[in-house]
Amino acid sequence: MDLIHELTEYFRKFPGIGPKQAQRFVYHLLRQDTYTLQKISSAIAGIKKNVRTCAGCFRFFMVRQDEKKCSICSSKNRSQATLMIVANDSDVESMERSAAFDGQYFVLGGLVPILNKNPEEKVRLNELRKLVEASPDLREIIIAVNANPEGEHTLNIVRAKIADVAEKIGAKITTLGRGLSTGAEIEYTDSETIKNALRNRF
Amino acid sequence: MDLIHELTEYFRKFPGIGPKQAQRFVYHLLRQDTYTLQKISSAIAGIKKNVRTCAGCFRFFMVRQDEKKCSICSSKNRSQATLMIVANDSDVESMERSAAFDGQYFVLGGLVPILNKNPEEKVRLNELRKLVEASPDLREIIIAVNANPEGEHTLNIVRAKIADVAEKIGAKITTLGRGLSTGAEIEYTDSETIKNALRNRF
Amino acid sequence: MDLIHELTEYFRKFPGIGPKQAQRFVYHLLRQDTYTLQKISSAIAGIKKNVRTCAGCFRFFMVRQDEKKCSICSSKNRSQATLMIVANDSDVESMERSAAFDGQYFVLGGLVPILNKNPEEKVRLNELRKLVEASPDLREIIIAVNANPEGEHTLNIVRAKIADVAEKIGAKITTLGRGLSTGAEIEYTDSETIKNALRNRF
Amino acid sequence: MDLIHELTEYFRKFPGIGPKQAQRFVYHLLRQDTYTLQKISSAIAGIKKNVRTCAGCFRFFMVRQDEKKCSICSSKNRSQATLMIVANDSDVESMERSAAFDGQYFVLGGLVPILNKNPEEKVRLNELRKLVEASPDLREIIIAVNANPEGEHTLNIVRAKIADVAEKIGAKITTLGRGLSTGAEIEYTDSETIKNALRNRF
Repeated sequence: MDLIHELTEYFRKFPGIGPKQAQRFVYHLLRQDTYTLQKISSAIAGIKKNVRTCAGCFRFFMVRQDEKKCSICSSKNRSQATLMIVANDSDVESMERSAAFDGQYFVLGGLVPILNKNPEEKVRLNELRKLVEASPDLREIIIAVNANPEGEHTLNIVRAKIADVAEKIGAKITTLGRGLSTGAEIEYTDSETIKNALRNRF
Repeated sequence: MDLIHELTEYFRKFPGIGPKQAQRFVYHLLRQDTYTLQKISSAIAGIKKNVRTCAGCFRFFMVRQDEKKCSICSSKNRSQATLMIVANDSDVESMERSAAFDGQYFVLGGLVPILNKNPEEKVRLNELRKLVEASPDLREIIIAVNANPEGEHTLNIVRAKIADVAEKIGAKITTLGRGLSTGAEIEYTDSETIKNALRNRF
Repeated sequence: MDLIHELTEYFRKFPGIGPKQAQRFVYHLLRQDTYTLQKISSAIAGIKKNVRTCAGCFRFFMVRQDEKKCSICSSKNRSQATLMIVANDSDVESMERSAAFDGQYFVLGGLVPILNKNPEEKVRLNELRKLVEASPDLREIIIAVNANPEGEHTLNIVRAKIADVAEKIGAKITTLGRGLSTGAEIEYTDSETIKNALRNRF
Repeated sequence: MDLIHELTEYFRKFPGIGPKQAQRFVYHLLRQDTYTLQKISSAIAGIKKNVRTCAGCFRFFMVRQDEKKCSICSSKNRSQATLMIVANDSDVESMERSAAFDGQYFVLGGLVPILNKNPEEKVRLNELRKLVEASPDLREIIIAVNANPEGEHTLNIVRAKIADVAEKIGAKITTLGRGLSTGAEIEYTDSETIKNALRNRF
């Protein structure tokens, strides 16, 4: 297979990319100068060399010297009393953008598919349990997952996995509040959200 | 103007209807038999004769005998201690569908436009104030408006309008809870909603 | 059933209207004054009284005195040598908007569904055949139908129905040209359209 | 700037990619194994080494030995009498997919922006003129551009640029046919397309 087709196939596996757009990516690259292509190529080849999975929260981070933990986990300014469990790195970024949370994170590495028999193989449940056991200062564990069926399923699996160790160290387990999201119009809001919005009225 | 054009113009003023669809409505009617057209015509002519604005909540309702109040306002099974203020009739229906509220309603008749100088002319603020003053049994007033700028603005206007009388009768003023709505994915959720979801965690 | 529900049901049968929008139409009417409601009601009741199916092309038209034919069919300025066969009244309007055709029309009353066994019961094929037989001045019959499977099917059915009488009076049968429509981009154009665009190059 | 941000910036310049999706691409790569990353990296670094601009039609092609022309331009089975001028490589692919053209291609390298003063600097007009001058066997030159304003503009510019040399060698200049594209419904078709469909009826 020639390089163009090879590269087109790789681009097709990029999230959300179909065959036409994969091809357009290749034409885009063909129009770049050799220097730019070299830079992109090096960045891709080296991306994992410089990236490490954080020993604390398990998210990807850029290693600068030889640190084992990401900037959030090694920060002195964040509370050790709260742990937020999220599915993916991008959820950490959403949370940080909101600037509303200053505790620790734990990245599961995905949501648990609803029919999955061995969630431990799919997401870091064992690692999470160990972390909670080893964190006597924790007062609250927030399971912050999507408000959809896969998220609910993951919530239940995670809660069951850590309920006893959380109780032992004296940390309560919470989850994100439900209600009207920004921009929601009552007329078009589903009954479950309305129920939640009423329950959480303030 | 002939009847086809006249009717097309009326249909164009229907909410969400453009010129093409207005015309399609007319063709649709032209294909109906005379009996059906008579039925539709009578229903439109008579719709207000049988409909009254409820003396309690101000929403439209079908008069059966000569009652002054709608079925919700005249029900013995609903709490007199809670009043929910909504913008429109359709919001009452959303709430009733959720089956999560069993108090009284008050329909403002719209949201207050942000630049409006005389909100009293636009929505039933004076009527609302009178109602609250005359309702010593009220313990809570829920202002249930859309989670968008016009809703926020209406919330502020309504709150200011009734704050003193609500205090006098000893009713607290609340609003709908904010957070993740059903189906929300954290990665795509705006920072304000995330902040609210964190604040309302449970 | 009360008038509000009755009217909501009628609106739900309007083309493209779901239950929510049907209800919104009713609220829209409830907010109109009695005079406006009377006008709409009369227009609907009277719409067929003033409308007749044209004895020439079979489209709907507003009767002014007691004419049997629509303004196009009774115009002296339009060619009698060309007949365009279309599915619906709205197709006549599209054609007239383009100002590119000055012949006669014939409205079939719909497209022939692909699995239909008795197309004569569905669209005016017999009436069309009679018209062609009785039109010795016709030189061309344009079958102007949608460029989709149902349109192709209708094209074939209509052509088969009138081929012999068209030949007898010496009229050729044509159909609309295929190619790039306004705004089409070659990269996103399907192969069939490209083939047609190449065949019809000029 | 670290490699993750660097790569995110490169992905943001990919056609149709916003900041969120660029970031998702990076996470996608971080989840690949080192072998796959090496393969993608090499393909990008080498893509231009193996790709040449065809000396005939100017499109990109994979060099196998040391050939100067792409497989279409060097094919013995394609007519030398027809030349199709297109804007981009992807248009050649659309045409080849349709299997309706067996002549030669010329890739302009883009469309001419409407306000552009120096089209010769933007697309290969001079190269095209030279090619036509040197092709005495040409009988037809098809300018195959998008049916939108930029396409029309390019059509006019190209035609003006080669009109005299085309006449000298005895080649006529044509363009793609206009009309209903596959799936078009008459009711929703613009007047210009209807005009073209009527003019090209068959």
